[in-house]
Amino acid sequence: MRRLSIGTSLKSIMLLWYTNFRPMFIQKLIEGIHAKKTPLCVGLDPRLEWLPKKIIDKCKNKYGATLISASYAIIEFNRTIIDAIAPLVPAVKLQSAFYEQYGPAGMQTLLDSIIYAKKKGLVVIIDAKRGDIDSTADAYANAFLGETDIFGKNKSCYDVDCMTVNPFLGKDSVRPFIDVCKKYGKGIFILVKTSNRGSADIQDQKVKGVTLSEKIACMVDTYAKENKENKYGYSNIGAVVGLTFPQVAQKLRKLMPHSFFLVPGYGAQGGDIRGIKYFLNDDGLGALIHSSRKIIYSYREQKDGEENYLTIVKNAVMRAKEEIRQYV
Amino acid sequence: MRRLSIGTSLKSIMLLWYTNFRPMFIQKLIEGIHAKKTPLCVGLDPRLEWLPKKIIDKCKNKYGATLISASYAIIEFNRTIIDAIAPLVPAVKLQSAFYEQYGPAGMQTLLDSIIYAKKKGLVVIIDAKRGDIDSTADAYANAFLGETDIFGKNKSCYDVDCMTVNPFLGKDSVRPFIDVCKKYGKGIFILVKTSNRGSADIQDQKVKGVTLSEKIACMVDTYAKENKENKYGYSNIGAVVGLTFPQVAQKLRKLMPHSFFLVPGYGAQGGDIRGIKYFLNDDGLGALIHSSRKIIYSYREQKDGEENYLTIVKNAVMRAKEEIRQYV
Repeated sequence: MRRLSIGTSLKSIMLLWYTNFRPMFIQKLIEGIHAKKTPLCVGLDPRLEWLPKKIIDKCKNKYGATLISASYAIIEFNRTIIDAIAPLVPAVKLQSAFYEQYGPAGMQTLLDSIIYAKKKGLVVIIDAKRGDIDSTADAYANAFLGETDIFGKNKSCYDVDCMTVNPFLGKDSVRPFIDVCKKYGKGIFILVKTSNRGSADIQDQKVKGVTLSEKIACMVDTYAKENKENKYGYSNIGAVVGLTFPQVAQKLRKLMPHSFFLVPGYGAQGGDIRGIKYFLNDDGLGALIHSSRKIIYSYREQKDGEENYLTIVKNAVMRAKEEIRQYV
Repeated sequence: MRRLSIGTSLKSIMLLWYTNFRPMFIQKLIEGIHAKKTPLCVGLDPRLEWLPKKIIDKCKNKYGATLISASYAIIEFNRTIIDAIAPLVPAVKLQSAFYEQYGPAGMQTLLDSIIYAKKKGLVVIIDAKRGDIDSTADAYANAFLGETDIFGKNKSCYDVDCMTVNPFLGKDSVRPFIDVCKKYGKGIFILVKTSNRGSADIQDQKVKGVTLSEKIACMVDTYAKENKENKYGYSNIGAVVGLTFPQVAQKLRKLMPHSFFLVPGYGAQGGDIRGIKYFLNDDGLGALIHSSRKIIYSYREQKDGEENYLTIVKNAVMRAKEEIRQYV
């Protein structure tokens, strides 16, 4: 007979709570979209050289030209941006590379930004595009979505709501992410068709009459069906599909009816928002539209824009929301 | 007329030195292989639960069950392993995921391990499998191989000799890594055929009669030819090809004659070392064989192995070197 200790029972109850009652990523996201009346996701991609001079000068004078100083400048900038946009949009996406380039201090800034954005009620996505073989993929999934075992105790590290995943290593490399999503109610967006021109080199290649993107889309749909457990009919397992390829999106939408698309390419990358209809389902949902540079650095396009950078950023969000509203 | 300031001249001279006189990754690697008489590369992949109990207890007692504590335990373990293996092998490979799972403190441990391994004369490879669109790929390349602009001054962050790159986003996503390699004399291994079973899902798919791996191999060879500037005839641009697929390697070797292969799959993943001949060129070079668990955790297979874990690890390296020697 199986003996249940109090510890085991508690663990089971907590797992039950996690898997059944904790709001899942996709539910939080859809409710955020409804509350903020927009599927716009703002990218928090720090570029030190573009930050307002007063923030730069303050940190440089205090800590010198160091990685630590850079990290302080970025978190100060991020906090002001998060405060400004949190009432306006449902989600933020943090591009891991732009934090990694500042070393371990940059990763601390990433973590601080995540914690701050979550506190402000935003759904937080990390764009890390990780992908690796089984045990390594498991470590990545636990680092960003789940928990790491520290001397027998489980500790969460970055604890974001969702992350992007690269499927190049195949199904067994994606599986650990799916399992962690199930366990913790988190989400992933699997790269299906990226927004860059070079995506054609591999993703558009035809295999037995279908493109590799379409093949991966079928894989995503299989996972999505396994993970469709909420009242909205959407799964925690989504796909990245660039706004720059609306015709491709039209096909992919049919192949992945249960998946949300994370849609990069709007704004600086030149994707045309009029094509967004091809990314949506009939319910008007299914696309989370991402813009970064065009919003958080919008003040750089105006003379003396740095003086009122938060007002200009808020206006850029409002303009983007209005533009999206016309076509969604 | 173009005015040259002293600053500009100095910059040009330094760039000349970087690109022409600084030992390049591939040169350091090949000379290391000759000096240590083996193409074995040891993986430093921390798994807290497998570390010797005395290291664990020391850190746990001092700092509690925290991420910081975990990081101290790992760097202590890594230093002892590096000291033990540095006279025996030319290179170490650090799997980024196993450090990322311990948060920013884990990234500090990664950096400390890199610095220590370089000080001990080892070629240092980071297995990060990064891949993203242009400006983001540039940030990744600068984070790990190049330098980041901090308030107008260039600072290197992780500064490893070489990293792994995921080509799923296409040529324009790989190009920034190539450029940074050229500028700083660094190297990359592009994923061509990974060691896991699931690699078949995408990499083995046939496009116009050739597999996607073969198609990527041709891309790697194009880059390799651009970057073949040393006396050994090998390029800084290499490929990842798993030991688990010797028949595939035989084909890929012909497609990428100027590239070194980073060969995972030896040891715990079950690749058969007898197949290594298919990974080599006629000069007996061309493969860097990677093993992690079977070496650095070899003491776990013996009763009371933790007592003399460094001796056991050294013996495991010697055994692996002897086994490889028979077939290389």
